[in-house]
Amino acid sequence: MFNIALFGAGRIGQVHAANIANHKETCLYSVVDPNQESAESLARKYQTKVQAIEQAISDPEVHGVLIASATDTHADLIELAAKHHKKIFCEKPVHLDIERVHHCLETVKQYQVPLFIGFNRRYDPQFRRLKTLFDTGTIGKAESLLITSRDPSPPSAEYIKVSGGMFRDMAIHDFDMARFIIGEEPCSIYAQGSNLVDPAIGQAGDIDTAFIVMKFPSGAMAAITNSRRSGYGYDQRIELHGEKGLLSAGNIKENSVELWENTGCLAARPEHFFLQRYREAYIAEWDHFVDVMADRATPECSGFDGKQALYLADKALESLYSGKEIKL
Amino acid sequence: MFNIALFGAGRIGQVHAANIANHKETCLYSVVDPNQESAESLARKYQTKVQAIEQAISDPEVHGVLIASATDTHADLIELAAKHHKKIFCEKPVHLDIERVHHCLETVKQYQVPLFIGFNRRYDPQFRRLKTLFDTGTIGKAESLLITSRDPSPPSAEYIKVSGGMFRDMAIHDFDMARFIIGEEPCSIYAQGSNLVDPAIGQAGDIDTAFIVMKFPSGAMAAITNSRRSGYGYDQRIELHGEKGLLSAGNIKENSVELWENTGCLAARPEHFFLQRYREAYIAEWDHFVDVMADRATPECSGFDGKQALYLADKALESLYSGKEIKL
Amino acid sequence: MFNIALFGAGRIGQVHAANIANHKETCLYSVVDPNQESAESLARKYQTKVQAIEQAISDPEVHGVLIASATDTHADLIELAAKHHKKIFCEKPVHLDIERVHHCLETVKQYQVPLFIGFNRRYDPQFRRLKTLFDTGTIGKAESLLITSRDPSPPSAEYIKVSGGMFRDMAIHDFDMARFIIGEEPCSIYAQGSNLVDPAIGQAGDIDTAFIVMKFPSGAMAAITNSRRSGYGYDQRIELHGEKGLLSAGNIKENSVELWENTGCLAARPEHFFLQRYREAYIAEWDHFVDVMADRATPECSGFDGKQALYLADKALESLYSGKEIKL
Amino acid sequence: MFNIALFGAGRIGQVHAANIANHKETCLYSVVDPNQESAESLARKYQTKVQAIEQAISDPEVHGVLIASATDTHADLIELAAKHHKKIFCEKPVHLDIERVHHCLETVKQYQVPLFIGFNRRYDPQFRRLKTLFDTGTIGKAESLLITSRDPSPPSAEYIKVSGGMFRDMAIHDFDMARFIIGEEPCSIYAQGSNLVDPAIGQAGDIDTAFIVMKFPSGAMAAITNSRRSGYGYDQRIELHGEKGLLSAGNIKENSVELWENTGCLAARPEHFFLQRYREAYIAEWDHFVDVMADRATPECSGFDGKQALYLADKALESLYSGKEIKL
Repeated sequence: MFNIALFGAGRIGQVHAANIANHKETCLYSVVDPNQESAESLARKYQTKVQAIEQAISDPEVHGVLIASATDTHADLIELAAKHHKKIFCEKPVHLDIERVHHCLETVKQYQVPLFIGFNRRYDPQFRRLKTLFDTGTIGKAESLLITSRDPSPPSAEYIKVSGGMFRDMAIHDFDMARFIIGEEPCSIYAQGSNLVDPAIGQAGDIDTAFIVMKFPSGAMAAITNSRRSGYGYDQRIELHGEKGLLSAGNIKENSVELWENTGCLAARPEHFFLQRYREAYIAEWDHFVDVMADRATPECSGFDGKQALYLADKALESLYSGKEIKL
Repeated sequence: MFNIALFGAGRIGQVHAANIANHKETCLYSVVDPNQESAESLARKYQTKVQAIEQAISDPEVHGVLIASATDTHADLIELAAKHHKKIFCEKPVHLDIERVHHCLETVKQYQVPLFIGFNRRYDPQFRRLKTLFDTGTIGKAESLLITSRDPSPPSAEYIKVSGGMFRDMAIHDFDMARFIIGEEPCSIYAQGSNLVDPAIGQAGDIDTAFIVMKFPSGAMAAITNSRRSGYGYDQRIELHGEKGLLSAGNIKENSVELWENTGCLAARPEHFFLQRYREAYIAEWDHFVDVMADRATPECSGFDGKQALYLADKALESLYSGKEIKL
Repeated sequence: MFNIALFGAGRIGQVHAANIANHKETCLYSVVDPNQESAESLARKYQTKVQAIEQAISDPEVHGVLIASATDTHADLIELAAKHHKKIFCEKPVHLDIERVHHCLETVKQYQVPLFIGFNRRYDPQFRRLKTLFDTGTIGKAESLLITSRDPSPPSAEYIKVSGGMFRDMAIHDFDMARFIIGEEPCSIYAQGSNLVDPAIGQAGDIDTAFIVMKFPSGAMAAITNSRRSGYGYDQRIELHGEKGLLSAGNIKENSVELWENTGCLAARPEHFFLQRYREAYIAEWDHFVDVMADRATPECSGFDGKQALYLADKALESLYSGKEIKL
Repeated sequence: MFNIALFGAGRIGQVHAANIANHKETCLYSVVDPNQESAESLARKYQTKVQAIEQAISDPEVHGVLIASATDTHADLIELAAKHHKKIFCEKPVHLDIERVHHCLETVKQYQVPLFIGFNRRYDPQFRRLKTLFDTGTIGKAESLLITSRDPSPPSAEYIKVSGGMFRDMAIHDFDMARFIIGEEPCSIYAQGSNLVDPAIGQAGDIDTAFIVMKFPSGAMAAITNSRRSGYGYDQRIELHGEKGLLSAGNIKENSVELWENTGCLAARPEHFFLQRYREAYIAEWDHFVDVMADRATPECSGFDGKQALYLADKALESLYSGKEIKL
């Protein structure tokens, strides 16, 4: 049984708390959050305790930490946990500044602790199945990958301001998926974007609609289409075209009921947002991290993966500003 | 080039006129209709002539007749055409009275002319493909067949009164399809029905909603679900379950455009009604009849098939009234 | 916190054990099973104890019982539990003999304990949604209901012999669904069946393929199509046609990945069997029973519902043997 | 009745011949083709005559010409026809060299004859419906457009050599669709491509797989994904995302029959290639051109549209070679 200290009692922290508590090999040992009320409320729900950062990080009973706190605390907490030899699960991103990420990963390396970055989509059963079918040769060599990723509705301008921008905050998942699916590092990237959804996003210096194109050494290419607002739920689709055909992972609908009437055949929307759509992925990634803690696996999604996704986000931004394809 | 005299210039006659005129081996020679205006209008459209019944039937230039006139004229016209050695394409049904059908078929037999009954659904490319896949063993032996057949909206009570009732008028197509798909004659039939759609239909002594179950000698069974009003277009589906799986021929939608919005994903309705849904079937059945006229084929859908479908309709009615399964 | 004694440590008992243990208001207090090894293994998994029947039933710490033991023990256990004032969740059916059911329900009535019968499909989110949409008038009055229910593969002949036959064992769920969806008691029933899947089933005196038609007082009708072997997974679909359109709850596929290749577009099969397909339904029905135990609800699915479904199975059998529609 | 001289008796010429002959207001007057045998064979089929270029173009009986000959003859024939005041339907492209196109359009302007360029996809009922729904405000302002366009299998290297390259030959349709759907002229373009399908295509100096991104003045963007070989039929899809939702025009499948078996649910492939997929579009575009000839309409798809699509193809090529986004 691994005791886990959870940093962050917010929306995503609550998802992880449930998965930690439900896993037969892990126990939610403590909750850490600067907001005392949130921490206590979550701890009470799982009949566990609240700890301060230093307390949790130095507690010899704690085997692993799950970092789901504010983005700007991730790197510091990773380093602190590494120094105390805790096994680390950290939500993406490590940090919004790639130099800081680099330094943080050096520290992790020095202390030789496993670090898993929570790119949850890799653990979605649909995308995982697509990846497995591709890896087993079902469609031959990859030729073009298309990732559609649209949030249901835009975040507030306040969030946008601290988000690092659409590429570092949202597309970062898609960059990771492109690397994961194709299995190569891209050699060029191009991005184009617009502010169409909410003027406040533009005023905050960000875009809300984007197309990104990457090329890989094998000649395979990937395109990402992003929007901060779909208008119809969380649009999460992947199509991989290869030599022998196409693999497609479509949206999961809220239900399978259809209404056929005079105006047409109405089916359900895609699942609302990530908490619904990736519910199983969060469970599966935790299962993988338990394997890591138990030395049955090494992190499939490492600090390096976290850094590479951020690197692509930075370069996409450079392309957006320069109007040029960026060689990588 | 076969010259065709068309009996009946109504809705279905117009469909056939176009197919006769478009076929490279047939020519719309003349139009016959008691409504002079309809006859002339259709003849004008195809730059052909109007004839009276006797004139057309005895015209040595006429090679074949297409009977798409009122139901109660079919048997008389078939006999007349047979006596003049014309090749005969007749819309279903031969007649609403099975004794009259029997007598008519005897006449046809005596004069040795080919008679094709226009059960158009057999020529629908979807159902034809399902049948072909079944015949080539794709799902092994047939076990259960489900035919869904719902009209978009009910006919007038006036039509109902002369229609012969729902089973003879509407389900007759489904009885033919069940025989066609399974490839056996049923050995029992059961029918249950209600008047739910329009009270005027009930007042006219008919039902508008029905379930029918048939059993075949091999043990395979078929169910038909009928309604005079779907509310969402023409619902025409077939599912055949066999030893090794299921073949399904779903509805053809009006178009392939979907609208995804906050209330759900809206796809098009099924095609509106038979003129749209079976457009290709009408062309294909005419093509078959041309083969028959050219002695390249014998009628796949004969007078016997017409009689058997009517027989099943009569027996379904007997079951509905008696509350018993009828042995055939 | 309600302490639950679980009777039956088999396949379905294991599903319930997990749901009992995971629910925040219930605790798996003990496991009872004549097979000592099964009982111990399951108890060990949930760190709980094994009890004998009498021990569990008379234990004052036990608040509720979940009966998932062999069918022929259900009625006895229900009566025993009722006499000890335990709240009762029992898997369907109460008993295969309707007289025994009747007597059992009398006992339950006498002791005034709540009895919930686990017709899990009522709690499937898809069917529940269809029912809710219907109840809120989305399609107006019900006209025809079609329930497709096919198991992936047939059980052994040994199972068949003690199953009570296809109608009491398998179609019983569909009888309950028809009553649940339409919201009326049927007034007639007709059944037709064949032995097509496995000759051993026929030798055991049973059928494996069936069509059943029921009529309701409102004129609405329902048809059930059953097979012991689909060949393509667990086929569980409902279509309800009403005045204004159709509600359809299709199969849930194993995944959303499609492979498009030269031979066609391949999508996943329906979920394999009930453990997968109705996973959420088992959780939801347990949630309802917790509400019952906490006096927040009365059983939505009562002993009466259990009896009525069995009654319809008996009458379907009578129809099958007599070749007549049975008035109810 | 308009008499039409058809230039080109090849594959696409044959499609047009049928549509000309079937239209109630047009007559296939003559066939012109350097390959005498092809010309005669087609003329014979429609019981019409063969003419030489000059003969047809100066024949006072000819009202309109349909140019479906080799690409490098289009501009010359357009000019010749213009000088003889014939109304002109020309298959895309006008010419592969934009200067030549420019000069040709000047000539057309001078002689004031209507010129229609056959961008058939604008007349596809699915895409037309998507466009209409968008134009009527169904999804609000356009934000991102995704065009998937993949041929079933690659052409020969010989064809590639004279094709003008993938962008001018294949993507040109997609450039036109992007302009047509969005209703604006793009202000920037970026293209990335690879040679993955057939090495012979690379040796011929071309690519066979591409992503193209365009930006429009309103901020809307469009991406095109192209491949010379899908492996599963003709993949022709459009998705338009707007403020209020998404409009999607999916593939048309070869049929609606599905086979459900143990390995999954197999549906039909998309229609094989353009002759099947755009059959209705060819009929509809001819119908529009008849309206043009009858002065009931002006060409919806003009020489200017032909030029703009070629211009985008040229600029996409410039982007591909330079690795830069090109401002337009």
